[in-house]
Amino acid sequence: MSSHVGVIGLGAMGLGIAQSLRRGGFEVQVCDLRREIAVEFASNGGIACASPAAVASACEVVFSVVVNAEQTESVPFGRDGAAAAMAPGSLFVVCSTVPPAFAAAIAERLAAMKLLFLDAPISGGPVRAAAGQLTMMTAGSSEAYAKCEAMLPVIAARVFRLGDAPGNGSKVKIINQLLAGVHIAAAAEAMALGIREGVSPQALYEVITHSAGNSWMFENRMPHVLAGDYSPLSAVDIFVKDLGLVLDTARASKFPLPLTAAAHQMFMLASTAGYAKEDDAAVIKIFPGIRLPGKKPD
Amino acid sequence: MSSHVGVIGLGAMGLGIAQSLRRGGFEVQVCDLRREIAVEFASNGGIACASPAAVASACEVVFSVVVNAEQTESVPFGRDGAAAAMAPGSLFVVCSTVPPAFAAAIAERLAAMKLLFLDAPISGGPVRAAAGQLTMMTAGSSEAYAKCEAMLPVIAARVFRLGDAPGNGSKVKIINQLLAGVHIAAAAEAMALGIREGVSPQALYEVITHSAGNSWMFENRMPHVLAGDYSPLSAVDIFVKDLGLVLDTARASKFPLPLTAAAHQMFMLASTAGYAKEDDAAVIKIFPGIRLPGKKPD
Repeated sequence: MSSHVGVIGLGAMGLGIAQSLRRGGFEVQVCDLRREIAVEFASNGGIACASPAAVASACEVVFSVVVNAEQTESVPFGRDGAAAAMAPGSLFVVCSTVPPAFAAAIAERLAAMKLLFLDAPISGGPVRAAAGQLTMMTAGSSEAYAKCEAMLPVIAARVFRLGDAPGNGSKVKIINQLLAGVHIAAAAEAMALGIREGVSPQALYEVITHSAGNSWMFENRMPHVLAGDYSPLSAVDIFVKDLGLVLDTARASKFPLPLTAAAHQMFMLASTAGYAKEDDAAVIKIFPGIRLPGKKPD
Repeated sequence: MSSHVGVIGLGAMGLGIAQSLRRGGFEVQVCDLRREIAVEFASNGGIACASPAAVASACEVVFSVVVNAEQTESVPFGRDGAAAAMAPGSLFVVCSTVPPAFAAAIAERLAAMKLLFLDAPISGGPVRAAAGQLTMMTAGSSEAYAKCEAMLPVIAARVFRLGDAPGNGSKVKIINQLLAGVHIAAAAEAMALGIREGVSPQALYEVITHSAGNSWMFENRMPHVLAGDYSPLSAVDIFVKDLGLVLDTARASKFPLPLTAAAHQMFMLASTAGYAKEDDAAVIKIFPGIRLPGKKPD
C-alpha cells in the first residue's frame, strides 16, 4: 500500500482530516478551489495540487470532503476529475453528508471504472476533525476497507462499519442529522418558553442538563444562547440542507416525518429571517415576544 | 421541628418518597384512595391514615404526590382535605406535575389559611424515587424551605432552588417534559426511518448513542423498541397529559411551540390507536410501513 493519500476539499473538516493523515505519517496531496489554502497546508508538509485529477494520479486512496452532493459528484466526474486519473483498484472515499441513493449511484459509476468506493460520512465538528477524533459511519466492500485500514484510525476515534452496501453510512448519518436538527430546534423552543415564562435561562440550563430532558445538542448549543454569541460553529443553513436531505430520502418511499418537517420549517424561517449564516442555535430567534440573553432592550 | 411527616398518594413515586422518608428516620403517615396500599406500607413502619385530614392533623409537613392537578386540588381542599386540619405555619409540598398557574393559585389559597407551600415537582422515575435519588425542581419561601430542610435530602439527590415564586418549579418541570416528550417522539421517528431504510436498528442505536444526535431519552427508551417490549414504565398517556400542560401554559400567553404541538399529536395518535397504556416508546407504532423488532410477520 502506498503512503500517498489525497484529500480534496480543505474546509474545516477536510483540513482536519488532511492534518490528521499528515500527522499519521502519510504523504498527503491536497487540492481545494481556493488554491491558497492548499498551498498553505503544504507549507507544513504535503503536496498542493491544482486539480482532483492531479491528486488522484499519485494516490491510491482519495478522500473527498466537500460541501454537498453536487460538489461531491464533480470531484471524480467533473472537469479534471479524479476518477479518470485513478489507477484500477484505487479507492474513492466520500466523507460529505449526501443522499444515500446518491452515494450508491457514485459507487456504481466508480465500479464500472474498476474503482473502489467507501461511503464514510463523519461527525464531530472541526475541533475533533483536527484532533483525529472524528466519528465515521462507513459502508463498503472488504476490498475498500483493506485499502484504507491504516488511515481511518488516524482520522477517527470511532469507525462504525455498517455493512457492504454503499449508502448505509449515509443513511445512518442523515438519521443522526435528523436527531441533531430536531434536538437543536427543541432546545431553542424549550429555552424560548422558559424565557417567556420568566425562568432564569441559566437555571433552566443547569436543571435540564441534569434531567431526563437533556440532549447532546441542548448541552452543546444552549451555551451559545446564554452567551448571546451566534458566531457560526455550524450554521443555520447546514440544517436547512441536512433536514432537507432527510425529508427527500423519506419522501422517496412516502414515509412521514412530522417532527423533522416541523424542525425544517423552523430552520428555514430562521434562514430567511436573516440568520442563515449564524450559528444553528440562532433558530431561537424565530420566537417572538422574548428578549434573549445578550440582547439590549430596543 | 416534628419528626412526623405526611405523604398523600402512594403511586410509584409517592411510595418511593414515603419509603425514603421512613428510611431517613421520619415517622411517616400516609394515605391513598386504595386503603390497602397505605396499610401495607405501614406494616413496615409508619401510620396508615384514612384521609388527608387525618394525615395532616398530626404532621407539620405534608407531601402530595398524586396524579394530576385535579387530584392535587382535592388533597388540601376536597372532602376530608388536609388544609383545614393543618396547624398554622405548617407546610404543604406538591410533587405532582401541574400547571404553573395552578401551583401559584394553590399557594395563594394556603397562604390565606396561614399555611406554607412548596412547589416541588420531581423527576427520575420509580427506581430513583425508591432510592431517595430524585431530582426536585423547587420554588417557595425561605420559611417553606426551613420546614423541610431535613427531608428533601433523603428524598432527592439534587434539589434545584428556583426562587421564591411558587410556580417556578412547575415551569421548569413542564419545560423538562417538553424536551422529554419531543425527544421520545424524535427517537421513535429516527428509529422508524432507519428501519424503513433497511438499517439495522441495533447498529443505529450503537452509532447514535455515540454521536451528536443522542439524547437521554433516545438512549433510555429505544432499548424498549429493540427488545419489542412495551411494558409501561411511563405510559403514552402521560405525555398526552404533560405535553398538553405545556401547550396550555404557552397558549395562555399566545406563545408558539411547533415541535411540542407536533409531538403531542403523535402521542395522541398513538393513544387513540390503542397504545394509551403502553410504554411511551410505543409512539413508534404510529409509523406505517415498517416491521418493528419483536413483531412477527403478519
